[in-house]
Amino acid sequence: MHPRTLAEIDTPAVVIDVDRAMANIARAQAYGNAHGLPLRPHIKTHKLPFFAHAQMERGAIGITVQKIGEAEVMADAGLTDIFLPYNIVGADKLKRLRALADRVALSVTADGAATVAGLSAAFADAGRPLSVLVECDTGMGRCGVQTPDEARALAEAIDAADGLAFGGLMAYPAVGKPHETQAFFAETLAELARAGLEANVVSNGGTPDLWRAHEVTAATEHRPGTYIYLDRYQVARGVGTEADCALTVLTTVVSRPTSTRAIVDAGSKALTSDTLGMTGFGAVVEVPGVTVSALSEEHGFLDLSAAPNGLAVGDRVRILPNHACVVSNLFDVVHLVSGDRVVDVLPVAARGRVG
Amino acid sequence: MHPRTLAEIDTPAVVIDVDRAMANIARAQAYGNAHGLPLRPHIKTHKLPFFAHAQMERGAIGITVQKIGEAEVMADAGLTDIFLPYNIVGADKLKRLRALADRVALSVTADGAATVAGLSAAFADAGRPLSVLVECDTGMGRCGVQTPDEARALAEAIDAADGLAFGGLMAYPAVGKPHETQAFFAETLAELARAGLEANVVSNGGTPDLWRAHEVTAATEHRPGTYIYLDRYQVARGVGTEADCALTVLTTVVSRPTSTRAIVDAGSKALTSDTLGMTGFGAVVEVPGVTVSALSEEHGFLDLSAAPNGLAVGDRVRILPNHACVVSNLFDVVHLVSGDRVVDVLPVAARGRVG
Repeated sequence: MHPRTLAEIDTPAVVIDVDRAMANIARAQAYGNAHGLPLRPHIKTHKLPFFAHAQMERGAIGITVQKIGEAEVMADAGLTDIFLPYNIVGADKLKRLRALADRVALSVTADGAATVAGLSAAFADAGRPLSVLVECDTGMGRCGVQTPDEARALAEAIDAADGLAFGGLMAYPAVGKPHETQAFFAETLAELARAGLEANVVSNGGTPDLWRAHEVTAATEHRPGTYIYLDRYQVARGVGTEADCALTVLTTVVSRPTSTRAIVDAGSKALTSDTLGMTGFGAVVEVPGVTVSALSEEHGFLDLSAAPNGLAVGDRVRILPNHACVVSNLFDVVHLVSGDRVVDVLPVAARGRVG
Repeated sequence: MHPRTLAEIDTPAVVIDVDRAMANIARAQAYGNAHGLPLRPHIKTHKLPFFAHAQMERGAIGITVQKIGEAEVMADAGLTDIFLPYNIVGADKLKRLRALADRVALSVTADGAATVAGLSAAFADAGRPLSVLVECDTGMGRCGVQTPDEARALAEAIDAADGLAFGGLMAYPAVGKPHETQAFFAETLAELARAGLEANVVSNGGTPDLWRAHEVTAATEHRPGTYIYLDRYQVARGVGTEADCALTVLTTVVSRPTSTRAIVDAGSKALTSDTLGMTGFGAVVEVPGVTVSALSEEHGFLDLSAAPNGLAVGDRVRILPNHACVVSNLFDVVHLVSGDRVVDVLPVAARGRVG
């Protein structure tokens, strides 16, 4: 028996407004449809088969995962088209990847010869080749080949490797710079054409510039993740409003030691220390202007200077976290609510996976 | 069948050097013994019955937990003397607290009238009174009464409340300021004496000033937590050396996109974004001077400017995190090693608990 209403949920707890989440899925899908840009949502944000299926039912062409453990959980749950944009390295993971490719349509990325060699060795005797996309660093400064020339050379290496098929290009773009990503893709596609290679997929990603995704005209798909829940950072970026945010952390005020300080029972082990460049660690939904100013592991500090009589011990407030994706990852279950009604309590199936 | 050697552990994974952890327990216990200061270790760092029992066997007088869920797991595992220095608020938690008090020696804290009222209502008809200590804010600026006068008044309220017994004083001190804590305790004890009340327990805590704990002469016990594993922050504080640190995150280098950048498969979902005021998110054990300069959720960025040829794709390195306690909380299991041998793989039993 799970709690039936918000008031029955013990704290701290993750609460997902399922109506808002579904509206966020629909809004993004409508945008993609309007621009002829298919979506391949990233499930790292929610890690739930329930929402992965919802995303597919609304029109997604497949899902994106960030690690094999997530892919395995989603495959077990009946998802059949999975993109894992990560360099899969090491014997254990390559073995799992091979097993996974036997049961779903799977593609991965590589950004260097060592990764391609490992994938090729693992798939050399596979019944069908593994689709490998070249990860491009279009400005993010993380993984990825650094130039279109390198991208073309790696595509040729993939094309020539036993057990592999060159699948296309992938980038996780720098925030606010879709044109840099478009330029990198366009130049690479031209180089590939000269080399006689075709990129079936050109995959771009990210929620911060979701509503500008169509500016990357070379992209054949977009991989938004956080858009389903949104969070304080995405609101600051203008991706949605606080009224669109689906994930909050329900907390209880446990201390009012001074007239301007309240302590809630969600600390860094519930909200994480992610700031994403912002001030504070979350916003109190019920008290506008009040943010989480500091965190201990099991204590969140609220500065009530702006609302000294706003909260009493025992009051329950929801915190909008800076970054929804890392919060999901801390909890074993999330509570789906519609208004004040708890419609389900779901295990975060794909959290805590090794690799 | 768990991995038998370090080389067999897939990444990312938490590795605990059990010899170092045991040495850290012994070192702190010897310090406490030398100063006549009993230890009540805080299990929030490891969340493992295995180490809680080890701490008791080495001489601890009981354990400390930070939430009821941790207390329940430890009680289930046979720990019998548990201090929960937290304001327990709300009907669900008070019910669980009452059930817990029936099976272990339990004490909690309060820092205000509302918390005391809730505890009293829950324990009014209990067979034995619940021991409640007054939490004092001696400079940390978190929970706690603000003055010795408030502390005495709350002690009197506890003493007068049905179902409760005044148990003493507790503080989590500001780092580097043991004398402020001592002064607060001493003044409060004098006020209590004038009011005819005795504080059986005066409980101080923290690892950052562990080796100065004896300077708080009023304390009857000390609650160190992080000391068992230590971490990059505690090394920076001088509590131990990197060679004393027991917890590391084993990672694999998955990308070398440039001559100065390596990417490992541990990001904010493995290391957390805790900085504790330091630069970077962890140190690479095998490559001195190289730190984790940035994090995505599943990517850790290493700046190899100081060691450009230091690491190749597929290399495995251990990261010493800034803050051990929050890392434990992210993983479902930890690997206990002795040298390169894996001696056990333990579920992090007390993680992911509600409240």
